[in-house]
Amino acid sequence: MAVGTELLLGQIVDTNSSWIGEQLALAGVDSHFQTKVGDNLARIVLAIREALARSDAVIVCGGLGPTQDDITREAIAAVMNVPLERDDSIIESIRAMFGTRGREMSDNNLRQADKPVGAEFIPNDRGTAPGLIAPVGHKVIYAVPGVPHEMQHLISTAVIPDLVERSGERAAIVSRVIRTWGLAESTLAEQLQPRIDALDAAGGNPTIAFLASGIEGIKVRITAKAPTREDALKLIEAEDAEVRAVLGSIVFGVDDDTMEDAVGALLEERALSLGVAESMTGGLVASRLVNVAGSSDWFRGSIVSYASEVKYDLLGVPRGPVVSDQAAAAMAEGAARLLKSDVGISVTGVAGPSEQDGQPVGTVIFGFHIDGATDVVSIRLPGDRDRIRQFATITLLDQLRRRLLDRVT
Amino acid sequence: MAVGTELLLGQIVDTNSSWIGEQLALAGVDSHFQTKVGDNLARIVLAIREALARSDAVIVCGGLGPTQDDITREAIAAVMNVPLERDDSIIESIRAMFGTRGREMSDNNLRQADKPVGAEFIPNDRGTAPGLIAPVGHKVIYAVPGVPHEMQHLISTAVIPDLVERSGERAAIVSRVIRTWGLAESTLAEQLQPRIDALDAAGGNPTIAFLASGIEGIKVRITAKAPTREDALKLIEAEDAEVRAVLGSIVFGVDDDTMEDAVGALLEERALSLGVAESMTGGLVASRLVNVAGSSDWFRGSIVSYASEVKYDLLGVPRGPVVSDQAAAAMAEGAARLLKSDVGISVTGVAGPSEQDGQPVGTVIFGFHIDGATDVVSIRLPGDRDRIRQFATITLLDQLRRRLLDRVT
Repeated sequence: MAVGTELLLGQIVDTNSSWIGEQLALAGVDSHFQTKVGDNLARIVLAIREALARSDAVIVCGGLGPTQDDITREAIAAVMNVPLERDDSIIESIRAMFGTRGREMSDNNLRQADKPVGAEFIPNDRGTAPGLIAPVGHKVIYAVPGVPHEMQHLISTAVIPDLVERSGERAAIVSRVIRTWGLAESTLAEQLQPRIDALDAAGGNPTIAFLASGIEGIKVRITAKAPTREDALKLIEAEDAEVRAVLGSIVFGVDDDTMEDAVGALLEERALSLGVAESMTGGLVASRLVNVAGSSDWFRGSIVSYASEVKYDLLGVPRGPVVSDQAAAAMAEGAARLLKSDVGISVTGVAGPSEQDGQPVGTVIFGFHIDGATDVVSIRLPGDRDRIRQFATITLLDQLRRRLLDRVT
Repeated sequence: MAVGTELLLGQIVDTNSSWIGEQLALAGVDSHFQTKVGDNLARIVLAIREALARSDAVIVCGGLGPTQDDITREAIAAVMNVPLERDDSIIESIRAMFGTRGREMSDNNLRQADKPVGAEFIPNDRGTAPGLIAPVGHKVIYAVPGVPHEMQHLISTAVIPDLVERSGERAAIVSRVIRTWGLAESTLAEQLQPRIDALDAAGGNPTIAFLASGIEGIKVRITAKAPTREDALKLIEAEDAEVRAVLGSIVFGVDDDTMEDAVGALLEERALSLGVAESMTGGLVASRLVNVAGSSDWFRGSIVSYASEVKYDLLGVPRGPVVSDQAAAAMAEGAARLLKSDVGISVTGVAGPSEQDGQPVGTVIFGFHIDGATDVVSIRLPGDRDRIRQFATITLLDQLRRRLLDRVT
């Protein structure tokens, strides 16, 4: 449970819960619900009660600061139906923390030395707010500060070890995400149905699930449970091979790999430099490529030729329609020439709102200049202006990836 | 409520709920809890029941896809205690959606035409999954897809209008967001404190609130309540003038206006064309500018000169350090010359991870070539690679905005 009105208002994205969720999965602890609640005593109490009713343990993150709207301590005391007591030894450690930072402790910080009767403090050597372990019958509530590096420290060193000890059982859960691009989720699901059926028949471990990531393609998640992390990884490796055998070249990476990472790795391997000429994507292709670590080794730059005159005068596109095979080819060649790169790629088209050169909205033409030869590909994309641009960008990168895969290194 | 095991496992950060939270706040709808739950029927049903017990309306996000783990439809039917029924007209619209993409609809997609008896579909022209409006007694459950651009479209056009109508608020509540850039929230709050005090003293209508939006600046929201929309708008107009008088040129727009919209409007007004040369931002400046409707009237293009050789050979930067005032000036002039634009702007710098040309990470230098004169501005930005790039981009646009404001039309 993440506590803070700013989370509900969307002023801060709750990345703490994602991090905790991942740590719990890695520790083999099932995590079934995550809740965000504002700085309101009655609602925090309600949310903790509901959470405790459906789970064996609840981790509360945030609301342990020194100000009047930090009320997680009070809420836990209310759930436990006990008063708060102040701990003098904690006051001293908070005062010492201020001392090392050369500041005076404010009276407000005395509140951070309060704990519900029957709860234990988790010492916090990274900040002033200690955590709490608060038993409720045979269940337990943990409280940790919302500051990410303090939270992470307390979760890793105190909460997860305590949870694992309480659980008695220990299994490692490991996931791998296979990144694919170019097939609809339903088609992918049909192709992998025989694997899913086989896994089910064999006991349902590992499991396969699908995650749609918008224009970034479909993620195939393999999750395995085993006594040790190594055993779980072996199950994952075996299933990874099966999934790739079914899916072939639509797989472009794993886990956090992006399409541009895949393109960058192939260019690096083949020692090729890349230049881009883009029109309707307006710099999106370049801005994705520079996200790749080490892209300066192979990315030369991009000519964002939004105006037709720039295409004619700078890139050498013959005067005439700029949404055409001829223009896309000349742009790819122009990019390689101006940017002095081994490979030149281009994209021109109609992002909308209205047609251009007699071509309807969604028309996109790509050019590829590799090893002295130029080819073009023309497609039609659905959606609004932004979506057409985003799709055109990743499609161009995927088309380049496929050409680089086909090219002998 | 966000549905998806991948959210609990921390594989995806739930940014949808943050976005929805902000939209609800802007619409004046109190949002007290946000929950994440995995792809498990019993737990989704439990979570919806709990949410419905403590709230008047529940928005469920995700789990409307075509695969077997997409079970939000089934969960809502269970909560309503009704069966699902298949809608033939929705099947046809899904089939048509596949048709425009040149693909065959899979049988799995038939599930997306299912709805609980008594619920209504929300048409989704951006994807195959329609949303749902499912009344439960005097309360209501909404379901929207988890794909962000589809979710955003359905929330804005269907869910929030329906919520506001159901709320039965007889008075008109109107909000306007004043967009500012360049001051910290605390400084802004101090400057506006006299206005907030004056409004409080006069009865608290309209009200002023602040929303931090990361690199996009601080939003100042004015909300007024009156018998009619016209009366509320009058209150807003009067307070808008007061706020602007305090804040001056840090105000760049209202509501959905972006920094690039502000720049585009000023260029349009002054009949000036713009060319860009960007290095460390790698196309981000261009990609923001082309988002402006009508940008083809004034945006010529951008030379993304990532490699130093491109700066020297193409833009005419003198050989030597490329993170320098001299390079930034030459890039701005080169952009105007190559792209044949009235105004040339540039950005060079060190996004990291390591220093360059003896300059530390975060060093950013901007060049401006306007009316034959060139000036440069050098700043130091905090944060990681991505944050430095994003901040450099919006800072460059804001600096151009200020120069255009100062220039007589």
